[in-house]
Amino acid sequence: MKTVLSEDHRQHFPKGELYGGELVLPFERPERWDFIVDQLKAIEMTDFIAPDPLQMETVQKIHDAAFLRFLATAWDQWAEENYKGDALPTVIPARRMQQKEPDHIDGKLGYFCMAIETAITSGTWTAACASAAIAQTAQSLVSAGERTAFALCRPPGHHAARDLYGGYCFLNNAAIAAQGFLDTGADRVAVLDVDFHHGNGTQDIFYDRSDVMFASLHGEPEHAFPHFLGYSDETGKADGEGYNINYPMPPGTDYPVWSSALEEACARIDGYGPDAIVVSLGVDTFKNDPISFFKLESDDFTAYGARIAKLNRPTLFVMEGGYSINEVGINTVNVLEGFLNT
Amino acid sequence: MKTVLSEDHRQHFPKGELYGGELVLPFERPERWDFIVDQLKAIEMTDFIAPDPLQMETVQKIHDAAFLRFLATAWDQWAEENYKGDALPTVIPARRMQQKEPDHIDGKLGYFCMAIETAITSGTWTAACASAAIAQTAQSLVSAGERTAFALCRPPGHHAARDLYGGYCFLNNAAIAAQGFLDTGADRVAVLDVDFHHGNGTQDIFYDRSDVMFASLHGEPEHAFPHFLGYSDETGKADGEGYNINYPMPPGTDYPVWSSALEEACARIDGYGPDAIVVSLGVDTFKNDPISFFKLESDDFTAYGARIAKLNRPTLFVMEGGYSINEVGINTVNVLEGFLNT
Repeated sequence: MKTVLSEDHRQHFPKGELYGGELVLPFERPERWDFIVDQLKAIEMTDFIAPDPLQMETVQKIHDAAFLRFLATAWDQWAEENYKGDALPTVIPARRMQQKEPDHIDGKLGYFCMAIETAITSGTWTAACASAAIAQTAQSLVSAGERTAFALCRPPGHHAARDLYGGYCFLNNAAIAAQGFLDTGADRVAVLDVDFHHGNGTQDIFYDRSDVMFASLHGEPEHAFPHFLGYSDETGKADGEGYNINYPMPPGTDYPVWSSALEEACARIDGYGPDAIVVSLGVDTFKNDPISFFKLESDDFTAYGARIAKLNRPTLFVMEGGYSINEVGINTVNVLEGFLNT
Repeated sequence: MKTVLSEDHRQHFPKGELYGGELVLPFERPERWDFIVDQLKAIEMTDFIAPDPLQMETVQKIHDAAFLRFLATAWDQWAEENYKGDALPTVIPARRMQQKEPDHIDGKLGYFCMAIETAITSGTWTAACASAAIAQTAQSLVSAGERTAFALCRPPGHHAARDLYGGYCFLNNAAIAAQGFLDTGADRVAVLDVDFHHGNGTQDIFYDRSDVMFASLHGEPEHAFPHFLGYSDETGKADGEGYNINYPMPPGTDYPVWSSALEEACARIDGYGPDAIVVSLGVDTFKNDPISFFKLESDDFTAYGARIAKLNRPTLFVMEGGYSINEVGINTVNVLEGFLNT
């Protein structure tokens, strides 16, 4: 199993993350990546390759042009204001307000965000592009015949919607990879999102499409970030009706409950008959994750990797969240090993 | 001219305000009030009175029940989470997401906010209620026959919409006062908002009503907070069509330009024939205001106070913004003196 990765992720390391009313050391920080790489080395899964240059045409099928322009220029506009911190929004287009992009960077940040903890820094665009390129390159490997590949993306992507960033995400790496499969011959792609948090961005992007099925297992939106999407009655619309499947689960959910939902999701995916599967791999379902509330044990990750393998489809793993620093590497690699050993 | 005021405003003093990507000493802080009181004393305008208890029935005509319940309980819910900072939102219901109030306080904050700089503290609800009571009491004085009164409100109110807080505002004091005039015999009330920032909350509250005319002079939303409301083509809807009047003006606007807009606004108000006028009095149009971009001089405040007096209607002044600490007192009192001496 090849892992596509790049040191460019280090370009994105905000000074702070808004959490509990303070700016704290970001939960989503470069160290996460190091723990995963260390664990890959520990099991000698070291077929590391660098990403090819980003193919922007695919990205443009996933994100709006105005949003991409914003992401590419936000830091420079922010820097012109001589603010002291990294770029964070202050005002948003709430209910009954105008959904119109303002000229000033303060307004643009609010217009394009869906969460406020996520700062844009001088290196964010570079890192986000590298992360998307990693997903594309890993997808190309699978499209070219590999059974599987691991896109070690950072920053993650599944909260990034058509024209929204936030939740540590800027470009939706998994969605870009799914589009890449379609663009290289696949008729149908399934995205299976096992991150603790609902993949609101991926849902948004494919909500009216039947060529990508989206299935997500996650904390109930009443209680868990991103709070405003991920309900079970969100089933898709227009051509996409029936191709969006959410499994929201309550605080304290353990593996027996979680794996039942996975079983259902796998059955739906199997029935769909996708030519490829993209797994949005977040390991923040772990019992000790600092910002989540599921109760999976490390061995459970191995078990569900094996279950995904039984779908017997070309499968791309795209890294998303997971913030329990010590175990983020072990749990991630457990999923991959569970898959490979099945 | 009586001034209604209360020391309870000191209960609201967040540890930080999100500005330029950092948590900084809030621009909207208790000291602002002290500068105004000092200046009132300096000119011996010291007919100070305390507010009567808040009449919640009027407030309930302005704000949604769920929003009031949220404001009253937000701090206690936040405190249960053992976060270290004051209550700030992290995730919001952006485009195409669910407009549904979640159970968790993190989600509730995002659901009910329109701006993120504004923290809720242990004393915020007490201060917000006292501020609204000040507006009510001052309105009662004018309803009872006084020519004018000054509601020295803090926190301010004009950004607070039917079910949204933010921009330092929680309860919309000016809107509550306008409703108070209607409830005590007025048929029509005009709200004239001269704060630098658009009074998006007041506009929102009365947008479909003809019994309150709203006229606002403010920085263009393309460039100025609150960015997502305040365009000139927002003229009201349904019964309110034609009763909402916005005068957005560009960076660098000085008094000749600003006072032309005021002249137009006064003509519209005069034609409307209100039984009372509520002035949302922000003095952040001042040339040295740290977060605004108009260029009024201190004498200009005296001049426009006089212009408002010429409308010759019962007039209530409700304090809103103004952050140039040294001059916030002088400029505020200049408006009142200009009014009284005309």
